[in-house]
Parts: sequence; structure tokens; C-alpha cells
Amino acid sequence: MGGNSFGNLFRITTWGESHGKALGVVIDGCPSGMELSEEEIQKEMDRRRPGQGPGASPRKERDRIEILSGLFKGKTTGTPISLLVRNEDVDSSPYEEWKEVFRPGHADFTYQAKYRIRDYRGGGRASARETAGRVAAGAIAKKILSQEKINILAYTQELGGIRADRVNLGEVERNFFRCPDPQAALAMEKRIEEVKLEGDTLGGIVGILVQGCPPGLGEPVFDKLEADLARALMSIGAIRGVEIGAGFRAARMLGSECNDPLGPDGFEKNDSGGILGGISNGEDILLRVAVKPIPSIRLEQRTIDSSMRPTRLKMKGRHDVSAIPRINSVCEAMAAIVLVDHLLRQKAIERQ
Amino acid sequence: MGGNSFGNLFRITTWGESHGKALGVVIDGCPSGMELSEEEIQKEMDRRRPGQGPGASPRKERDRIEILSGLFKGKTTGTPISLLVRNEDVDSSPYEEWKEVFRPGHADFTYQAKYRIRDYRGGGRASARETAGRVAAGAIAKKILSQEKINILAYTQELGGIRADRVNLGEVERNFFRCPDPQAALAMEKRIEEVKLEGDTLGGIVGILVQGCPPGLGEPVFDKLEADLARALMSIGAIRGVEIGAGFRAARMLGSECNDPLGPDGFEKNDSGGILGGISNGEDILLRVAVKPIPSIRLEQRTIDSSMRPTRLKMKGRHDVSAIPRINSVCEAMAAIVLVDHLLRQKAIERQ
Amino acid sequence: MGGNSFGNLFRITTWGESHGKALGVVIDGCPSGMELSEEEIQKEMDRRRPGQGPGASPRKERDRIEILSGLFKGKTTGTPISLLVRNEDVDSSPYEEWKEVFRPGHADFTYQAKYRIRDYRGGGRASARETAGRVAAGAIAKKILSQEKINILAYTQELGGIRADRVNLGEVERNFFRCPDPQAALAMEKRIEEVKLEGDTLGGIVGILVQGCPPGLGEPVFDKLEADLARALMSIGAIRGVEIGAGFRAARMLGSECNDPLGPDGFEKNDSGGILGGISNGEDILLRVAVKPIPSIRLEQRTIDSSMRPTRLKMKGRHDVSAIPRINSVCEAMAAIVLVDHLLRQKAIERQ
Amino acid sequence: MGGNSFGNLFRITTWGESHGKALGVVIDGCPSGMELSEEEIQKEMDRRRPGQGPGASPRKERDRIEILSGLFKGKTTGTPISLLVRNEDVDSSPYEEWKEVFRPGHADFTYQAKYRIRDYRGGGRASARETAGRVAAGAIAKKILSQEKINILAYTQELGGIRADRVNLGEVERNFFRCPDPQAALAMEKRIEEVKLEGDTLGGIVGILVQGCPPGLGEPVFDKLEADLARALMSIGAIRGVEIGAGFRAARMLGSECNDPLGPDGFEKNDSGGILGGISNGEDILLRVAVKPIPSIRLEQRTIDSSMRPTRLKMKGRHDVSAIPRINSVCEAMAAIVLVDHLLRQKAIERQ
Repeated sequence: MGGNSFGNLFRITTWGESHGKALGVVIDGCPSGMELSEEEIQKEMDRRRPGQGPGASPRKERDRIEILSGLFKGKTTGTPISLLVRNEDVDSSPYEEWKEVFRPGHADFTYQAKYRIRDYRGGGRASARETAGRVAAGAIAKKILSQEKINILAYTQELGGIRADRVNLGEVERNFFRCPDPQAALAMEKRIEEVKLEGDTLGGIVGILVQGCPPGLGEPVFDKLEADLARALMSIGAIRGVEIGAGFRAARMLGSECNDPLGPDGFEKNDSGGILGGISNGEDILLRVAVKPIPSIRLEQRTIDSSMRPTRLKMKGRHDVSAIPRINSVCEAMAAIVLVDHLLRQKAIERQ
Repeated sequence: MGGNSFGNLFRITTWGESHGKALGVVIDGCPSGMELSEEEIQKEMDRRRPGQGPGASPRKERDRIEILSGLFKGKTTGTPISLLVRNEDVDSSPYEEWKEVFRPGHADFTYQAKYRIRDYRGGGRASARETAGRVAAGAIAKKILSQEKINILAYTQELGGIRADRVNLGEVERNFFRCPDPQAALAMEKRIEEVKLEGDTLGGIVGILVQGCPPGLGEPVFDKLEADLARALMSIGAIRGVEIGAGFRAARMLGSECNDPLGPDGFEKNDSGGILGGISNGEDILLRVAVKPIPSIRLEQRTIDSSMRPTRLKMKGRHDVSAIPRINSVCEAMAAIVLVDHLLRQKAIERQ
Repeated sequence: MGGNSFGNLFRITTWGESHGKALGVVIDGCPSGMELSEEEIQKEMDRRRPGQGPGASPRKERDRIEILSGLFKGKTTGTPISLLVRNEDVDSSPYEEWKEVFRPGHADFTYQAKYRIRDYRGGGRASARETAGRVAAGAIAKKILSQEKINILAYTQELGGIRADRVNLGEVERNFFRCPDPQAALAMEKRIEEVKLEGDTLGGIVGILVQGCPPGLGEPVFDKLEADLARALMSIGAIRGVEIGAGFRAARMLGSECNDPLGPDGFEKNDSGGILGGISNGEDILLRVAVKPIPSIRLEQRTIDSSMRPTRLKMKGRHDVSAIPRINSVCEAMAAIVLVDHLLRQKAIERQ
Repeated sequence: MGGNSFGNLFRITTWGESHGKALGVVIDGCPSGMELSEEEIQKEMDRRRPGQGPGASPRKERDRIEILSGLFKGKTTGTPISLLVRNEDVDSSPYEEWKEVFRPGHADFTYQAKYRIRDYRGGGRASARETAGRVAAGAIAKKILSQEKINILAYTQELGGIRADRVNLGEVERNFFRCPDPQAALAMEKRIEEVKLEGDTLGGIVGILVQGCPPGLGEPVFDKLEADLARALMSIGAIRGVEIGAGFRAARMLGSECNDPLGPDGFEKNDSGGILGGISNGEDILLRVAVKPIPSIRLEQRTIDSSMRPTRLKMKGRHDVSAIPRINSVCEAMAAIVLVDHLLRQKAIERQ
């Protein structure tokens, strides 16, 4: 129970360090008989790939996914699916310089406190690279959901303080930032370029939309659908807040404003975000997450080393300016894994 | 796996409906040899008791907790602790009138969709009364934590749009609203009285502060401390959003602002909220949750009945105007249960 | 994770000590919409009731089961079912005399070693009385199974060295010992009476037969159906061995003898005991368990006290001569709980 | 929850098919700071390697283990350890001939019933090759235990009806059959050669001895140490029965014979097998398992194909005559994994 597994009936276990030999994920509980190929999974992997677009570090890394088990003649067999990505051509030497230094905003200090040993190369297990396994597993989860006509879309609502004012979901796949407002996307690009020159980084807000979710998913009282989604999303390193439906806005609403009236055609509005009492109500599920700026900045920072001596850290390396939009695919993956799990749980108890 | 258990090494299972015979909780994994009494637990129970203060419904219900197992001569034995609260003098007749009607903002529609049967009396299992078991278990968790000098305090940051501008934690226990700003508490009381007359309800924001947490709690990567806390808090019916540290503010920060520098005396500020990479760093843990207004309002609402026919609902009954401050003790309980669980998990792997 | 829960999708949590206020069980994951009454559960409870038949202690205890939650208008609602049995008129005074003495064959020594405190009254949590909760939960599990035409029968194959030579299952319910051979039942009765006079106790062997189990239940590789059944049965205090199908006989068979040939009408024999590769094959499931003699004997025994000083123990009290046949209903209950759990797990992944 | 994970605090997840690309295991929860090398694990792997000794098939397969994560500078880091074995030079063509035929004694029929698809090459996931991951993880578990002075030894008590009459554990590592009686080992070799010529196979009995286990491990009531051990061992494909201590012999004992008296130097005998009330008592833990003959025989067998048509199966291929002694290392591995898990669980709740 080292915390590296997630899910109940559909359970993933990720492993691997940023600069270790490889990373991977084992998916247990995938139903049998579903067609699946490395290409399909690779497509999702490529979405979270660094070194793309403005604000990205120029690394050319491409994570090649390999399916090692669980498939036969192109179909899932119901046995565990093991997926592997080799770490190739990783240069760990830049990390040697700072191996005794706790980088602010990173997990260096806490891993050391917990385990008394840590793989300091590239952040080790705490690296965002760990999410490669999540995205690979999420590709499978999304395929299962799509067969049930459930779709998940993560999009950028805000980046570096620039908000998408107009939400046209058709635009999301059309710009690099996955922003539903093309005007805002242009402003985001400009903001990214500025901050990149300064050696600083940016955060933002990602919206996650689930369409087609049937009513009945989610288990009261602790495994409420929004509770499991919140855990799933908050388990992504950069995420610092999660909202469902009206979220923090609900704190200032009156009950008469916040309640969604029902009519013969369903709910008349959706401030509940598609979940009532922990169970999906058939409306769109709407979540928002706060993404903090990437902690690896090029500006000089005050910190201490492992002997608790004050020091100054000035990282060179090349890092992305923002986890957005790469994190969007991780959000989609985690939401998809939660939904598949609850879909299977509901199937188990459903009366025909 | 019906979702009624929470925790791993310290695991609670709650059961019971609002208007059933009784409610309760079983706590499994409580270490042996700790003194414990019904009075201690009762004290916490009384904090979440309805029918107190302004804005409260005038019910005089007092939940008498009974310890049925797990203690011997006043000490825990390491075996499961079963706690029971009888439901006495409950009048379910007002619910008969609306038994076929889905109340907006409630779980009526979704329970019906999921289970095809529901106990409509007082909201059944979806009632806030379910949290009685959480608070009872939380009293035990808080006692374990206090022995390790870890303390948890939930306080009201905002209610009905009125914010606590000055935060003086010493004030929290001194006013009914558990507000750290006595001026704001007076304004909250006024707002509550107004809204009560209108038959409407209010939401707000609760802050949760954990002091004395040692570094090292939390398990990467999925069981990050903030992820488990988020799930714990989002599993409380009225909560619609959770933030850790800077939370949604982090989305607009630069990396150089958001990172907490380290000095010889520890972290120089605490925008991380006491958790880095999913592991506690020894600083205070700071969480904020959004509480939606209570959905039971006296104003007329549009809805449908179980035959999908439109109807109008006008509830009489007596309901609180806000889940705050009663929900504060539930927040404390859930946070405490998560922390005890991670404390035990850390003990299991710690090197001496 | 104190070990007091069992099952995954259908999960039970038992609590309570032999001489505490009450005992009980919470069942989480029971599908909704099933008719259920206290009477049905009581019927199973009465089967495991002590103080009946030859060899029994003359106590007149009757465990009255009370359903506290999870039902509405006589039907399950999908929420947790809490069952309670009050301990009435228990006289703990005989245990005061031996409170510092470790009774041989009992868990006194090990509970003390593990928890450094123990409820010595009537064996506390380690008492066979703990199985009351299992039988109550098993009654519900058996009802679910019977709706799928799966039936479970535990019967006495051997008691005090006397074997049922002829197996006529129709006889099982006709004699006190649940023995399929009425001749053997008479000999068992005689043997019990002899040993009772001597102040000694007896063990035996119980067979468990599951009829009507469909193919496909059980999850490779660790949650094999026989592995989960073995755990379930070995978790009953008195059980010291478990076999499936040919069991220990298989150790002396040739492969050509042990393999069950398949014909157009199914398997031609059943040495596999209805499970292949951890998955049910549609044949009867056949298990056998070894039951040790009850450790509470009236003969004098050498032992030590909590200061590690040698002493002699001579218990008075009244105890059954054998756990058989009472334990049979516990075996049925545990097998039923495992099967319901796997039935739900299979439903979750089954393709329509 | 496809059943491919085992353990709680120390949890392993195995994956991979017999003729797939690779097999492996992920170990989550291994404490940090322990030295570990591929060589150590490889040593255990080589013990379960087929193609050795009399009665073995002449395959020259050697499973090369590769550590992919969880280590840094030769020490465990507390993060998941991923171990991989590539399947090299596997010839699946012999399986094409029988791909529609259900081999008696194998899991062909049940995997087809459960999943409606199966990887028929070499038994797929149901192959004994799956245990490679268990043995690799077991090597780590055994190292953790050895640091606590707990040792595990599996030895052959019986093979093909030939019993080890004299038990001299010093002999176990000195003969191929891991038999504590060298005379019996010679007779076993002869018996194996005979049966090999006949194209048939043999079963036997393996004893598992745990020395040095401290008192206090095991969690009442469902996670009794013997219950978890029974599940662990019964989850090994060939095992059909498990006994603890006196086991099935206890069924014929009197209580006065079966109880182990206590003296100032501890228990005076060990019919309980080192566990009382589900908790270790500090004595040796003694288990016995029944191993069925390998179902792959060269003799002709009656069976059916996937269209339910009767057919005759005559397998060529080369198979071992008995799972013994290879299975011994799998038994050791599974017992070790259970003990490490309970060791960590006990550390979590232990009072200092």
C-alpha cells in the first residue's frame, strides 16, 4: 500500500522514476474482448509529450509505449495489461550539481524526510514523467467509456491570468493551448513567451467536461463520484484545488439559486455539475482544477541543502513554462479511470 | 464495496438512515491501550448537533452515543469499536406528502436512478445525519492525533458572502459561527436571520488548519496526503470544492511567487499548504472547502415526480439555514481520520 | 485494516466481544430491491445457537437479531445493512478467576502479546460468539445466491473419529449432527456422551457442497475462487485445514487419474472440486475442512500466567464438546459470502 | 480488482502470459534503504527454473530478471520496484494444433467461460510461468524477513506416494528434490523416472516452516495469519489443500491432546503450528500443502473442443513430471510475502 495503485475494479499501478531505466503501468480489471493497439495508446501519449509548442523545452523525447501483456490477437483478454516506456538518452549529470539541495516547490525535502534516501535525478518518482503511465492507462479507460458513449474533454480555462471568455469547445483541438477561446489562446501564447524570457513559470485552470455519463454512477457515502474524482485529480502533482459544478461560487449562492430545478426534460440548469448525493444525474459532469506554476524556474532561489545550510539555487536545464496544456491529458486520463471504475461497480449491482 | 468505508489502516464504516432505527459507525484499526470514554465522543457529537444557535431549526434532538465494543476497563483493546446512536421520536409523516417528488438539490433523483428504491424519510442515507458516525469516529481520530501533538481546527472563513477579514483563531471557539473574526460573526448572524425569514439558505467557506503534523506523511503517487484529504472532504454532501495552500490563487501566480523558499528555520512561507509531492513537510496544513447552501428551502420550487410529471414543491418542515458551522466538526473529523491513517502507514515503513 | 472486514464488492465488517454489550455486523454492497426480514436471518442464527442437542452446554442463550438499517418497507435499499445482537444476562464472574492465566489452545497468550491488553471475559473478541455476525451476514448472502439457484450445504463427514460412510445428503437436516449417514450419527452421539463425561472435547471434518454455481466465478491469479474460499474458511477459529476436490488425495494420484475428462455432457468426474485455474467450471464445488477439538476442557492443564509463572488450569463452566455441528452454519455463511462477492465481480466485467 | 494483486502494505501485482512478450511484477510498499541487487533476485529465480534435474523437461530457458525501478545506488527508495523477465525463443506452434481443445486439468475451459477469449499459447496467464513474478517478489520479501531473523524453508514431505520418513532439514538443500530424507529422495528419483517413461505425472506434499517469527503477527478476525497464508498458498495453481499445525490430524484428536500446554520456556509442543486465534505465538509456523500432479500428460485423454464436440487429446511437448520441487520456491515466496505484510501491519499499531 505504497500508494502507487488507483481504482477498485479497474485498477492501475504505476511505477518508474524520471531517469530510471523505464516507466510503466499495469492495468488490472480491463474487460476482455476489446480491440486495442499500441497506436491508440501512443496517440494519447503523444498529447502529453513535452517539447512541443510555445513555452516548451526543446527536448525531443518521444515516449514509445510497448504493450507487454494482456492482449491476444489484438484484443484484451481480461488479464493484466502491462505497458512500458523505456527512458532513453537521459542525461542525469545536471542533477549531480544540486543533489544535496532541496529545490523549492519540489518534493526533494519531503521525499528525503519520508524515505531518508531519494533518487534526485530528474525528480525521481516525483517527476511529472510519472504521469506517462496514467495517460497510457487513461487511453484504455477512455476507449471503454467511448463504447458506452461517454466522452471526456479537458480544456484550458485560464493560463497565466488570461481567461477564456468565450467557450467554444470546437476550438479546443484547434490551438496548442487547448483553449476554447482562440483570442485568449493568442494572448496565452504571448504571455508564455514573456515569462519564458524571464525564466519564470505560469499556472492556470483546467476545465474537465464529461458528456454522456448515465445516471447512477457513484457510491454513497465515501466513494461519492465527486470525491473519487477530486482524489484522482488532486493526486496529480501540480493540482492545488478542485471544484465540481458551481464549486466555490456555490459558497455565495442562496439555496434557491443553487438548486437545479427539474422539468420533464431533465434538469433545467447544472450548478450541481452532474452529481447529486455522490451519484451522477445524467447531466454533464463539470470539474475545474487549479494548476500551480511549474516549480523549476531559472531565477535564483533561496533554499537549504541536506545539512540544513542555506544556499542559493539557480537551475539551468530546460523546462516548460507551464504544465498546461500537457496536464490536460492527465486530467482526462484520471477522470476516465474513475468513471470506468464506477461504471463497472454499477454493473455489478445493477438489476436487469 | 458499497462505498460506506473509509481509510486503510484506520478504517471507518458508517451505516444508518436519517429516520431508521439507528445510525452508527465501526472503527477498525484503532491502536490498543488508549483511554476512551463515551463522554469524550459525546462532546464532539454535541458540536455537530442541530437545533442550536441562530438559523437553526428548533429540533431538540440530542444524539446519545453508545460504545458497544472495542473497549475494556476504559481502554481500547485493538478490536473494532462499534458506536451507536438511536433515532428517537422521529416523525416521518411530513415526508409522506413528497415521497414521489424529487426535491431539487437533493439526492432523491439519483438514489432512485441508482437503486430503484429509496428511503424517502428525511433523506434516508443521503441525510446530513449520516455524518454523525463520521464525527464520532473523528473524535477517536482526534484523540490519537492529540497524543502525537497534532491538532485540527476548522473555522468559518465565509458565510453567506460575509468574509472573516481578520483571522484570530483564538476567537473561533468564542462565537457560534466558529468565525475567527468577531465582527464578521455578528454580520453573519444578521445575514442568517434575514435569509431565514425569506425561507432561503446560505453557503460559505470553511478553513481547516492542521498544526503539528510531522514531515513524512502521505504516500506518492495516488495516495498523496492532499488527494486523500480532498476525497475525504468532498465526500461530505454539501462540499463542492477543495483547495490546499494557495489553491486556486496558485493558478495566477508566477513560479517565483508560488515556490516557498527554505531557510535554516524551515519554509519561509507556506503557499504549498504544508504538503509537497503529496508528503507533509512539517508546516501547517491549510485547506479550504466550499459549502453549498442547504437544498431544503421553504420557497416554492419547480420539479418533477417519479412519473416524470412536472410539479411544484413547497416544503414546510424546519431546516437550518446553513450547514455552517455544524459542518466544521465534520471537516475536522474527516481530516483527522485521513491523518491517523497516514500516521499509521508511515509508522509501518519507518526506519528506526 | 484491523482485519475485521471481509469481501470486496459484498463486504462484511463484524464487531463485538463475547461478554461485551453487543455483537454485530455491517453488510456493505448488498444489491437493492431484495425482500428481507429479521425472521429469515434469525432462522440461520438459531442454527448456530449453542445449548442444543447432545454434547451441548445447557445455556439457554438465544441471539435475537435486530436489523438497524439498510431496509425500507421490507426490501433492501442498497445502503449498508447493520445487524445487532445484544448480549444479555452474561455472567463474566467465572473468568475473573483465570484472568491472569493463559488458557492452552486459546488466543489469550497471543492477544496479550499483540495488544498488551485483552478482554478476558469469555474469550473477548476471540470467542466463537464472533461468528454470530458471520452467520447473520451469511443468511443474506445465501438468499442472494438462492435467487441465482446456487445452494450451499455444509455437512458432517467425521466427528471424533467416526466417519459418515454413506453419504445421503437428504439425511443432513434430519439429525442433530448434520450427518449424511444416520448410522454414523448415532455413533457420533454416543462418542460425544462419553467424551463429555471425561471432560474432554472432539474435533471432526465438515464437507461443504456448493450446487448450481455457474462457470466463470473467480479471478486469476491471486483471487482464485478456491484461494478466497480457503481464506474464508481458515478465518474461522477452529479450522486447521482446507481441501478442494481431491485435496490431499491428489498428492498421491497420477496426472492421468487426477485430470477430469470432459465429455459432451460436461466433466465426467469431479476431482477438481468444481474449480479449474481459480475459476468455477460449472460442476459442484466440494470443500472439506478440519475442525480441531474445542480448547475449553474440564481436565486439568499445565500453563503459565501473565508473569510467566507455571500454574494449573481447571476450568469449570459449561462448554460444548465439539464445534460440530454449530460450525457448519458458519462454514456455509463464509462460503456464501465469497460466492456472492465473486458473483458481483463477474457481473461487473461480463459482456452481454 | 482483476485479482492480480496480493497483499496490503506490502503489495505485489503480477502480469504476463506464458508465451507473451514478457512477465513481471510490481512490488509496492517495500521499505526504503535496503540493499538489493538483480543477482540476489536471480538466485531465487534460478531455484524455480524448469529443465533441471530428473523428471524435468530439457528446455534450457533461463529467466533473466531485470530491475526497472525503485532502486537508487543499490538501495531501495520506497518507490515501487518493477521487475521484468523477457520471454525469449518461445515456440508457440505446438499449441496451434490444440487451440480449440480444452485440455483436462487445465484452465482452458474456465478461462474461455469467463473471458470468451483466451491466449492458448502455453496456457497463457494460467501457466505456472506466472509464478516467476511471485518468486522474484518473494526474494525481496525473504530479504526483509531475514533482517528480522525470520527464515522460511519449504521442503518435500512426499512425492508420488513416497514419504520422507526421517526429517533432517540439513538435507533439504543437498538433494534435487529438497527432501529432508536422503533415502526417500533416491526413491523419489526412481519413481519420477518410471512415471516419465509412462508419460504420466506425479503430485506430492510440501511442508513450509517459518522460523523466528515473533509473537503478535496476524489480525483477527478475518485476516488471521493462517487465513492469509492459506489464501496465499491456495492461489498457487497446483495446490489443492492447506493445513496448519496438526491440520487434518486435529480432527481426530481430543482437546486434551490437541491443546499445547505452556511452560516457563514457552509452548511445550506445537500442534497449533505457531498460530493461536490468528496471531503468531512465537513458535515455528508449520504448514503443509497438497500438490496435484501436473495436468500436462503424454497419455491420450478424452475431452471436448470449443464446439463441445468430443475429441481425443495426445500432447507431445516436454513437460516436467512433477511441480515438486520447483513449486517449493513459490510456496516460500508466498509465505514470505504474507509475513512481510503482517510484519508491517503490526509495526503500524505497535506501542513503543
